[in-house]
Amino acid sequence: MAGHTLLQLLLRLAMFSAQTKTTPMRKIIYYVATSIDGYIAGPGEDINDFQHTGNGVDKYLADLKDFDTVIMGRNTYEFGYKFGMKPGDAPYPHMQHYIFSNQLKLEQAAEQVKIYPMDVELVRELKSTEGTDIYLCGGGIFAGWLLNHGLIDQVKIKLNPLILGGGTKLFANAKKAHRLLLQQQEAYEGGLQMLTYDVLYVGGDAGAE
Amino acid sequence: MAGHTLLQLLLRLAMFSAQTKTTPMRKIIYYVATSIDGYIAGPGEDINDFQHTGNGVDKYLADLKDFDTVIMGRNTYEFGYKFGMKPGDAPYPHMQHYIFSNQLKLEQAAEQVKIYPMDVELVRELKSTEGTDIYLCGGGIFAGWLLNHGLIDQVKIKLNPLILGGGTKLFANAKKAHRLLLQQQEAYEGGLQMLTYDVLYVGGDAGAE
Repeated sequence: MAGHTLLQLLLRLAMFSAQTKTTPMRKIIYYVATSIDGYIAGPGEDINDFQHTGNGVDKYLADLKDFDTVIMGRNTYEFGYKFGMKPGDAPYPHMQHYIFSNQLKLEQAAEQVKIYPMDVELVRELKSTEGTDIYLCGGGIFAGWLLNHGLIDQVKIKLNPLILGGGTKLFANAKKAHRLLLQQQEAYEGGLQMLTYDVLYVGGDAGAE
Repeated sequence: MAGHTLLQLLLRLAMFSAQTKTTPMRKIIYYVATSIDGYIAGPGEDINDFQHTGNGVDKYLADLKDFDTVIMGRNTYEFGYKFGMKPGDAPYPHMQHYIFSNQLKLEQAAEQVKIYPMDVELVRELKSTEGTDIYLCGGGIFAGWLLNHGLIDQVKIKLNPLILGGGTKLFANAKKAHRLLLQQQEAYEGGLQMLTYDVLYVGGDAGAE
């Protein structure tokens, strides 16, 4: 009887182990520079006032190496054109790029660049595939849309010592408030604060339209 | 000759000391709670999502004791009515209140409550009088106006772990970017970050309209 019970126990353990071996969802991490008044770019998408050198920027660039996937909206992708990027280029060559847009058309594109329609299910699917966490590369409109659908897991702001007064908001069209959990605070040169927050979706936020 | 030179030196030192004994201007300190997306209140002036207890709030309340003067705009003054304040009341009884507004009329007011027109010179005059630093108690419109005129010396944000998505901006109608100098970073309970910045007015910002 004792042997039988042990066998049953082992079988149950094996079944439990198999059940819990689901792949963890990949996190979407919105890693972005902001001013203290909540802008990720000034009027006219001007980003000149943000820090472009220093150990905080070095840290950011090093962190980007850990992502194998980047997602962005059309505005952010096209913003790259101002800096010499061509349509179809992959601005982060070591990452797979998913540009979520219902409008963007590319005649040809690097193999690591895909355009997806703005479809919540496609984002969920991407999160459930194998891979590293996913880098959300701005901007406000796409980030606001993801937030409204409960899809951003972490916000990592490079808080620049800067008032911009206007421009591109951290989240455009965000429809409700969200509480955050501060996970990390790091100080860098020139008064740059790096603050990492988990987004707490409570009371059914995650499915909110 | 050596004695003469020493005397001359002492005289010069005394003169220099007298020249520099001007009263330092009182600083205007904008001490305010913000969300990470740069709002000091949510839609409908909702402030429920901000921290209202904890050691960060205790610190803020203790710091307020050090100010003998508070300035605010009409919106902020009238905002107090929602919380039981009556027209003419002094919400910070130990401070002199200067409400800068061209519209507000009070039939009667506590002796420490004065209404001043929105006049830059009156703010400058107030800064040059004797007293502690001056507490700027929101809100966005008045703060933006002061910033545009180079009159805010320090911004002390109680950065709440919170996305508000919309509401009252930290600075409304700010007309240009301003660099800041991080002076202090303090961490409090519940993920509250207290960040103190000096506003750097460069290239003639201080007089900008």
